[in-house]
Amino acid sequence: MSPPGARIEFWYDFASTYSYLSAMRIEALAAAAGVGVAWKPFLLGPIFATQGWTTSPFNIYPAKGRNMVRDIERLAAERGLAFALPKKFPQNSLTAARLALIGADQGWIAPFTRAVYVAQFAGGADIAERAALGPILQGLHLDSEKIFARIETADIKHRLKQQTAEAQARGIFGAPSFLVGEELFWGDDRLEQALAWVRRG
Amino acid sequence: MSPPGARIEFWYDFASTYSYLSAMRIEALAAAAGVGVAWKPFLLGPIFATQGWTTSPFNIYPAKGRNMVRDIERLAAERGLAFALPKKFPQNSLTAARLALIGADQGWIAPFTRAVYVAQFAGGADIAERAALGPILQGLHLDSEKIFARIETADIKHRLKQQTAEAQARGIFGAPSFLVGEELFWGDDRLEQALAWVRRG
Repeated sequence: MSPPGARIEFWYDFASTYSYLSAMRIEALAAAAGVGVAWKPFLLGPIFATQGWTTSPFNIYPAKGRNMVRDIERLAAERGLAFALPKKFPQNSLTAARLALIGADQGWIAPFTRAVYVAQFAGGADIAERAALGPILQGLHLDSEKIFARIETADIKHRLKQQTAEAQARGIFGAPSFLVGEELFWGDDRLEQALAWVRRG
Repeated sequence: MSPPGARIEFWYDFASTYSYLSAMRIEALAAAAGVGVAWKPFLLGPIFATQGWTTSPFNIYPAKGRNMVRDIERLAAERGLAFALPKKFPQNSLTAARLALIGADQGWIAPFTRAVYVAQFAGGADIAERAALGPILQGLHLDSEKIFARIETADIKHRLKQQTAEAQARGIFGAPSFLVGEELFWGDDRLEQALAWVRRG
């Protein structure tokens, strides 16, 4: 088992296809390992911009993008998940990320995150739209109007900027990323290894 | 078991760190699965150039490069392999790749490839140098002078260009890559999945 209080930080962008794969399995895997999960939404856009990218590398490099879609199709099929790349990719994940910060405060970030990913990558929804996000909040028995009002506050806007700056400062350059202390693991395929790292204590 | 004649194509560049990981384990894993391995050296440089890169993405994007080194250190430790990034990275892999084509004809490509990776990533050798490659050939009881003369022929130069063009035409954009028919798997972490794909027949 893991040391008491052991935890893994799960850093993700709501537009990231590989983060979808991790979001759907991290809670079960971490629980089996006796590890807590800290859900850390951030924005890849500003980090990509410092690398000179104005969109996803999967759009900039078409062969890589084609492989990503096929790779996720294969992995999703193995895991019993639906997957289709939405018409618009990558989507604007700003609103979803701000909402998730409120969810972190109020305890609903995990189911909210999974529902947003499923709506986007299984349901083809545009998660930039409140029309897609509102029903997700309501499905969690939340007051969506009140929550949408709160993401307009300077506090939430500032916290998301801070969280993104923290991601970059700690070496994160893509998503999903997992941090165990300052040990950085990048990619859904490193989730098991990151959890094993926690168990080393 | 796998269908008779089942095989996997292993596409690699001698300068690629993740290809080192695959080269050291593919033969054992494929043999256990009853699958033959076709060793396919090629050059990433011309493919990267079409993406606008003049060096490895691990150099262009320093955070990604730091993570690559740490990731390979962790994986190498798990697998009992030595690893240190050589002083010069990436190395010029042209000569090694031309030699390997002769090895493919003569049946020594697999041990030659492993020895070149070990010299480079465990021993810190510069594999652009004949001083590093000559002893590897001699260690395989080969006539290194005769083989070095042969890589100067138009036939070998042309075949390597062809093999690189074939890689790109079949969708390869990084190394290692595995092809099972036209199903493309990218990255050492997809080797098991690619072998499972062969077994599906």
